[in-house]
Amino acid sequence: MYKQNYRSKLLEDAVEQIASLPGVGRKSALRYALHLLHEPAANVEKFTSAISQMRSGVRYCPDCNMISDDGVCPICGDHSRDRSLVCVVESLRDVLSIENTGQYHGLYHVLGGVISPMDGVGPDDLPIKALVERVQRDGIQEVIMALDTNMEGETTALYIYRQLAASGVKISAIARGVAFGDDLEYTDEFTLGKAIVNRQLFSI
Amino acid sequence: MYKQNYRSKLLEDAVEQIASLPGVGRKSALRYALHLLHEPAANVEKFTSAISQMRSGVRYCPDCNMISDDGVCPICGDHSRDRSLVCVVESLRDVLSIENTGQYHGLYHVLGGVISPMDGVGPDDLPIKALVERVQRDGIQEVIMALDTNMEGETTALYIYRQLAASGVKISAIARGVAFGDDLEYTDEFTLGKAIVNRQLFSI
Repeated sequence: MYKQNYRSKLLEDAVEQIASLPGVGRKSALRYALHLLHEPAANVEKFTSAISQMRSGVRYCPDCNMISDDGVCPICGDHSRDRSLVCVVESLRDVLSIENTGQYHGLYHVLGGVISPMDGVGPDDLPIKALVERVQRDGIQEVIMALDTNMEGETTALYIYRQLAASGVKISAIARGVAFGDDLEYTDEFTLGKAIVNRQLFSI
Repeated sequence: MYKQNYRSKLLEDAVEQIASLPGVGRKSALRYALHLLHEPAANVEKFTSAISQMRSGVRYCPDCNMISDDGVCPICGDHSRDRSLVCVVESLRDVLSIENTGQYHGLYHVLGGVISPMDGVGPDDLPIKALVERVQRDGIQEVIMALDTNMEGETTALYIYRQLAASGVKISAIARGVAFGDDLEYTDEFTLGKAIVNRQLFSI
């Protein structure tokens, strides 16, 4: 959508800021801005201060780098979990998705990003060194890679793999294949090809 | 989506506030919150202050009630427009949509809402009295209703119609019918029925 004249610099600035959120276009941003404009001033104050306070106040777990308001996060602090397993993910959203499955009972390591030279993110900007130290210090038996299968995710996984290789820890990756319920016909060729090559013994 | 434990009260509060935007669910709100969390603090400050300043600083055109940073808005101030025509719309978004067509050269009257007892919005909360005065004062010839065809929009249009009836001004409404390019087959019965009843002379 081309840049429209909103007849107000203040509205224009607010729309521009809101449109900087991922996946939010100027049309949605205008809708959100007009909504806020018609809200009572106290509500708008609550809106902006919740965001400011989050940005300035959030702390991270010293072990896994997950968001945690104070000290060690509830997952790292839960001694009923399997402390020999660490799953490497990009963000808290991935932790929530995996926790929702109820199938994983180990710990996590949240990178908070992936290696992306285009965005100026190098290996030293991510807590990878901390992961290597953690594996050695805490006697981790297996590190599970659960990063996205795009250029940045694969680059990051490969880099971590190389950093950990010397430690002798077992390194695995989550299974990729045709999703349950998906038609083969509509599965992309790459996934289907990998699924055939990486076929597993039939089990019921 | 059920309420998830984000392991952080600060994140939780920010997600809740962002999810109060129209059409934004908790999943998108979490995505936006994590985006803001990973932005430099200065950018987040720009984001929140643009919204605060918009809310506290925006002014409205004394004639048409459209957003205008100072005084009479550019449309009301444009003396090349047809000043005998006023189109009544709910919001600035509707003004922008109609302006985009390039087919209308009159003025607007922006209600900033519609009558909605459920939301506590009565006729006196909208600049309807100002519209009646404006019609009489400025010698308006025709008022065009361009409100949504839902319960609130129709109620508001009817109320305005009654308020204006005594003034003798011509009152019209934008044409409703089957959209250009739409298949009759997929048009809802109500629209199609109205389109047949309100048929117009064939013209090429």
